[in-house]
Amino acid sequence: MAGRAFASDNWAGGHPEVLAALAAVNDGHAPAYGEGDPYTARAEERFREVFGPDTRTFFVLTGTGANVLALGSLLRPHEAAICPAEAHVNVDECGAPERFLGSKLLPVPAPDGKLTPALVESRARGFGVQHRVQPRVISISQTTELGTVYTLEETRVLADRAHELGLRVHMDGARIANAAAALGASLREASRDAGVDVLCFGGTKNGALAAEAVVFFEPALADGFEYARKQGLQLASKQRFVAVQLEALLQGELWRRNAEHANALAARLAAAIRGLPGVELVHPVEANAIFARLPARALPLAGGPYPFYVLDEPAGLARLMTSWDTTEDDVDGLAAALAAALAA
Amino acid sequence: MAGRAFASDNWAGGHPEVLAALAAVNDGHAPAYGEGDPYTARAEERFREVFGPDTRTFFVLTGTGANVLALGSLLRPHEAAICPAEAHVNVDECGAPERFLGSKLLPVPAPDGKLTPALVESRARGFGVQHRVQPRVISISQTTELGTVYTLEETRVLADRAHELGLRVHMDGARIANAAAALGASLREASRDAGVDVLCFGGTKNGALAAEAVVFFEPALADGFEYARKQGLQLASKQRFVAVQLEALLQGELWRRNAEHANALAARLAAAIRGLPGVELVHPVEANAIFARLPARALPLAGGPYPFYVLDEPAGLARLMTSWDTTEDDVDGLAAALAAALAA
Amino acid sequence: MAGRAFASDNWAGGHPEVLAALAAVNDGHAPAYGEGDPYTARAEERFREVFGPDTRTFFVLTGTGANVLALGSLLRPHEAAICPAEAHVNVDECGAPERFLGSKLLPVPAPDGKLTPALVESRARGFGVQHRVQPRVISISQTTELGTVYTLEETRVLADRAHELGLRVHMDGARIANAAAALGASLREASRDAGVDVLCFGGTKNGALAAEAVVFFEPALADGFEYARKQGLQLASKQRFVAVQLEALLQGELWRRNAEHANALAARLAAAIRGLPGVELVHPVEANAIFARLPARALPLAGGPYPFYVLDEPAGLARLMTSWDTTEDDVDGLAAALAAALAA
Amino acid sequence: MAGRAFASDNWAGGHPEVLAALAAVNDGHAPAYGEGDPYTARAEERFREVFGPDTRTFFVLTGTGANVLALGSLLRPHEAAICPAEAHVNVDECGAPERFLGSKLLPVPAPDGKLTPALVESRARGFGVQHRVQPRVISISQTTELGTVYTLEETRVLADRAHELGLRVHMDGARIANAAAALGASLREASRDAGVDVLCFGGTKNGALAAEAVVFFEPALADGFEYARKQGLQLASKQRFVAVQLEALLQGELWRRNAEHANALAARLAAAIRGLPGVELVHPVEANAIFARLPARALPLAGGPYPFYVLDEPAGLARLMTSWDTTEDDVDGLAAALAAALAA
Repeated sequence: MAGRAFASDNWAGGHPEVLAALAAVNDGHAPAYGEGDPYTARAEERFREVFGPDTRTFFVLTGTGANVLALGSLLRPHEAAICPAEAHVNVDECGAPERFLGSKLLPVPAPDGKLTPALVESRARGFGVQHRVQPRVISISQTTELGTVYTLEETRVLADRAHELGLRVHMDGARIANAAAALGASLREASRDAGVDVLCFGGTKNGALAAEAVVFFEPALADGFEYARKQGLQLASKQRFVAVQLEALLQGELWRRNAEHANALAARLAAAIRGLPGVELVHPVEANAIFARLPARALPLAGGPYPFYVLDEPAGLARLMTSWDTTEDDVDGLAAALAAALAA
Repeated sequence: MAGRAFASDNWAGGHPEVLAALAAVNDGHAPAYGEGDPYTARAEERFREVFGPDTRTFFVLTGTGANVLALGSLLRPHEAAICPAEAHVNVDECGAPERFLGSKLLPVPAPDGKLTPALVESRARGFGVQHRVQPRVISISQTTELGTVYTLEETRVLADRAHELGLRVHMDGARIANAAAALGASLREASRDAGVDVLCFGGTKNGALAAEAVVFFEPALADGFEYARKQGLQLASKQRFVAVQLEALLQGELWRRNAEHANALAARLAAAIRGLPGVELVHPVEANAIFARLPARALPLAGGPYPFYVLDEPAGLARLMTSWDTTEDDVDGLAAALAAALAA
Repeated sequence: MAGRAFASDNWAGGHPEVLAALAAVNDGHAPAYGEGDPYTARAEERFREVFGPDTRTFFVLTGTGANVLALGSLLRPHEAAICPAEAHVNVDECGAPERFLGSKLLPVPAPDGKLTPALVESRARGFGVQHRVQPRVISISQTTELGTVYTLEETRVLADRAHELGLRVHMDGARIANAAAALGASLREASRDAGVDVLCFGGTKNGALAAEAVVFFEPALADGFEYARKQGLQLASKQRFVAVQLEALLQGELWRRNAEHANALAARLAAAIRGLPGVELVHPVEANAIFARLPARALPLAGGPYPFYVLDEPAGLARLMTSWDTTEDDVDGLAAALAAALAA
Repeated sequence: MAGRAFASDNWAGGHPEVLAALAAVNDGHAPAYGEGDPYTARAEERFREVFGPDTRTFFVLTGTGANVLALGSLLRPHEAAICPAEAHVNVDECGAPERFLGSKLLPVPAPDGKLTPALVESRARGFGVQHRVQPRVISISQTTELGTVYTLEETRVLADRAHELGLRVHMDGARIANAAAALGASLREASRDAGVDVLCFGGTKNGALAAEAVVFFEPALADGFEYARKQGLQLASKQRFVAVQLEALLQGELWRRNAEHANALAARLAAAIRGLPGVELVHPVEANAIFARLPARALPLAGGPYPFYVLDEPAGLARLMTSWDTTEDDVDGLAAALAAALAA
C-alpha cells in the first residue's frame, strides 16, 4: 500500500488506541442502535465531562452526515445558513444540505476561509421578506478549509454578532482537534465557551476509522434529533463501535496528542519549504494544512512517494496536509524532494 | 456486557475475521473515498467474481442508507415502490425513503412477509393517471421481516411478473446471507439469477461492524450513483475499512458459515420450544428468526439472561433471533428457561 | 363544449358572482403578492369575521397546494399524518405530501371514508421509537372522499381524541361548504368549533375558478407560513384575483347557496335512482356525491350527454356528483337515461 | 385603489382580452385537469403553431412553479444549474428550487444580469468529482432581472457553449414577451431557435391574471412532466381558465402589443429622466425596466402617486417598471414629479 501521504488526513488509518477500543468491546452482545447500550452511554458521559453536564451528544458515521443533520436541527426549509464560499458544506458535500434539508446556503467569499461579523452582515438580509430565504444560522469550520484557525476571540465575537442577528452558530469541527491543539485550548473552550450552539466533532480525521459526533450545547435544540439521525441514514445498528472510537479519542486527550503531532509536523514542513525558490505559502499555516504555490516543475512530485493534492495546476496551487501518523522522516523526505526539484 | 441475546442479530459484535481484516489494512495511507484505493478495488473485484463481471458495487454504511439509495437509483420522485406492509423500508426506517427520495411507498399486507404476483398486481395501478404516483419498483426483503425465505422459484416468478409490469426489482438483503444459506444457493442465484435488479447486500448482521453494499446487476442503473451516495451521506472517507469488512465476509464464504450457523441454531431453538405448552410458532422458521406466541408467564424472560423482543405483549408475540455467535448453550439455556417458566 | 356533467364539481365553471368580483377589481394597480394589497386585506378580514378574530388566513391556488402546505405547518419531516386510506392526500395528489414535506402518511382503511378514534388509535403508535415516524397529525376530509359528512359531534370527539394523543387536526375542506350546508352549520361550527386546528377551505369546487385558503385557528401555527407558501409555489403575484374569489364566496354566504343547491340536487338524483333495478347506493348520500353500483348495461351512459365517472368497471362502481350549476333538468335527464337503460 | 404604479408589472390587472377569454369559456362543464378539455387542447395547439409542431406545453400557475418544475425536468438532485447571482430563481423564490428539487444552484455574479460563455465556464467544473454537484443546466432570464435583453446572437452563442459542455438551457421567460418585442423577434426565434431547451413562458406579467407555461422543445425532456406538475402543486383543476389566458395572449400577438407598449413607455421614461440632475441609469434600458440611481431627495416619491421600488436606499438605487397598462400620462407624471423634486 502507499506510504504516508500529504494528500489528506483521511488517507491515514486508525490510531492503535482506536483499534484497541474496537477489539475491547467486540465480545458478546450489546443492544443495537445505542438503545440501552452501556458503551454508548459511557461515551456520551465522556462528552458531558468534556463539554458540560447538559450536553447532548449523538454519534454518526460521516462528516457530511454530521454537518447536514446538525444544520437540520437549526433550520426549517425556508431558512438558510451563511457560510464561507469555500466551506465543505458548500463545495464538497455534493449538495447534501440542499438535498436533505431543502435549505439554501448563503455562501460568501471569505479571506483565509474565515467568516467575520462584516461578512455575516453582508448576507444576513431580507428578514421578513417572503420571497427570500431567512438567514438563521452561520456555519463555520474550525480549522477552516484553508488550514487557518479562528482565535477564541474571533469565534466569540463572531458568535456574539450572529446571536444578536438572531442566528445560531454551527461549527463544522471535522478538525476541531487540530484547532484546539493549535489554540492551546480545551475542546469546550474552542466551541461551547466561544459561543457555538452545535458542534460537529470530527473523529475520523483525528484517528478514528469512521466516527463523528453531533454535540448540542443547548439541550432543546436536540429535540427530535434521534429521529432525524435515523431518517438521515446515520444511525449505526452496532453503535458501540462508533461510540468507542470517539471515547478513545477523548481518553487521555488522545485527540490532542494526535492533533499536536500533526500540527507540529505541518509547521516543520512549512519551515522547511518556506524559503525554497518559487515557493509561496498562501494562507497562514496554523494547524495541519499548508496551502502553497509551487513552481510547475515541482508539481509532478504530487504523484511521487509523498503524494499531495494539486488544487489548481495552472496556478501551481497545492495542499500539503499532515496527519496523526506523519513522521519527521516523511516531512524531511518531502522537503528534500521539493528542494531537489526546485534546485534542478 | 450482556451475554449473547436473542434480541437481534445486530446485537452481536464483529466476526474475528472481520476484525482481523480491519487490522490488516490499518497501516499506512490509502486514498480516501475509495478513489484509487486498492483495498476498495480489491473488494469490488470480489463482488464481480461472486455476482458477475459487469456487476457494479458501492460500499455504504447502514442498511437504511443502502435501501434508500438503491431505491433512489430506480425511482423518480413521482414514482413509487410496492412493498410488503411489514417491510423495513416501510416501518423501521423512520420515513427515510420518503424524506430522502420524496417518493411514496405502496405497502400491501403480505402473509408471511412475502410479496406475490397477485399482491403486486393489486397495487400496480394507476399507470398513466397524472394524479397517482407511478409504480416503478417492487421492494422485497430476503429473508423477510418475518423470518421467511422466498424460494428461488418464488423470487423468479415474482421478478418476472414485476418486469412484465414495467417494474424493477429491489432486494433488501440485510439478511441475504441467511436466505442463500437456507436455500443452499449462491448469493448470485438468490439475487441476480432470480431476477433481482439491485441488491442491498447486508454485511452488518452477518458479522461486520458496519458495512453494506449496493450491488447493481445492470450497469446503467448505477449511473450517477457515486454522487447519490455522497449526497446521501453514505460515503466513508476511510473507505478501505468498509470495503475490507465485506471482502472478509465473501472470503471463503464466511457469510455462508455465519449464516448457516445462525440458521441451524434457530432451527434447534424452534425444535426445542415448538412442543412447549402454549407455544405457537407464527411463521415458518426458515432462517434465523423465530416468531412465536408465548403464554404471558413466559414473557418476563425477555428481560432475563437471554434477552429477546416482545413485539406485542397483549398477543404474547415474541421474536427470537440467532446470530453468527449464538452458541448451542445459549439455545439450550433459553429453551430450558422457557420450559421451566411454562411448566411452573 | 360539454353540457353539465356529473363527473366532478370541478368540471363546472365559475359562479357569476365570482367572475363579477374579478372584473370589479381588475382596473388599476394593486401591490403584488398581497403585500399591502387592500383586496387581500379585505378578504382576510372576511375570514376573521367568519372564523374568529385571531384567525390567520393565507390564499393559495390549488387544493393540493393547500393540503401540502397546511400539513407542512404541522409536521417536521420525521413526523407523520394519519389519514383514511382513501384520502385525497394519500391517493390523488401524486405523492405531493411525501415529495414536498418528506413526511410519511399513515393511511388506515376507513369505512365510509371517516376516521374514528379507534382508527386513529390503531395508527398512533411507536411514540418515542427512533425507528418509527412519529404521528403528529390527523388529516380528515369534510366532506369525505366518499361523499359522507362527519357530524359536528363526530368531528369534535375525533378532534378531542387526537388532541389527547398529542396530534393536531387538519381538515381538507375542499368541500367544506357542502358539509356545512348539509349540517346546517356555520363554517366555523364545522371546523374551528369542532376542534380543527388548520382548515383548507376549498373555493374552486364551490364556484371559484382557482382559489383555496389555508386557515389557521391557532395563530402560532402559522408562523413562517408566508415563506412556506412562496417556497411551496403557491404565492400568486396578482393575489387580489385569488382573494376576491374567496371573498365572493363568503359574501352573503354564496358558498352556502352553492352548496345547498348541489346537495339538494344530489338528493334528488339519489331519490330518483335508488329504486331502479340493480342500482345500489354504496355510501350514505349526505352531500353532493353519490356512489352507486350500477348494472353493466348502465355504464356506457358515463360517456353520454350526462358524463359521470366509472371508478371500477368490473364492480360497476360509479360516482355521480352535482355542482353549483347542476339543474333539475340535468338530474331528471340522467335519471331518465338510467331508468331507460335499466328497463331495456 | 392605487393608480398605475411603476413598482412592478405584476401590479397591473388583467388585459381586457384575457378577461373576455375567461368569460367566454365559463359556461357549461369541461373535463377537469385538462384531461380531454377542448380549451386546453386548443391552447396547446396554439403553442405548437408558435413554437413548432413537436413542442410540448404544460400550463401552470406561478412563475416560480414554472421555473422549479422546468429545472426539475432537466436535473437529478445531484445535478446543478448555473445561473446569474441576481437570478429570480436564486434570490426571489425563497429557496423553492432547493426545497423542491434538492438541487443546488451555482450562482455567478453577472454584469447586467447576463451569463456569458466565460461565466458559465467558470462554474462548469468538477465534472466527475463525486464530492461536487454536477453542472447540468444553465438558467438564463430573458429579459434579465436587470432589465437587459440577450441578443439573439448572445443567446445562441451561450446556448451552443452550454450544449458543448453537456449543459441544457433553461430560459426563465417571465418577461420573454418584452424581450422578443425588444428584439423584433418571434417568440420562437427568441427561445427555441436560439438554442433554448425549455422555456418558461410568462403570462402573468404580460397581462394574464395567473398563467404560465412550461414549453419543451425536445419532446423527450417532458416525459413524466404531467406527474411532476401535479406533485409540484401546479395542476389547476379548472385548467381551461389557465389555458385560455395564455391562448388570449398568443391570439393576434396580444403578447407583443402588450410588451411593445410597456417597452415603449419605459423608453419614454428613460428619455425623460436621463438628463435630470443626479440621475444615473445603471443598466441599459432595453425592455420595460429602468434601474436608476436617484438623489436621496427623490426617493420619497417611491411612496407617492406613482409608486416604485427603492432597492437600496443608501445607494439610491431604484427600479421603475412599466406594464401593459401604463399610460403616457403616468410616465409624464412621474417624470415631472422627479424633475420637480430634483429641481427643488
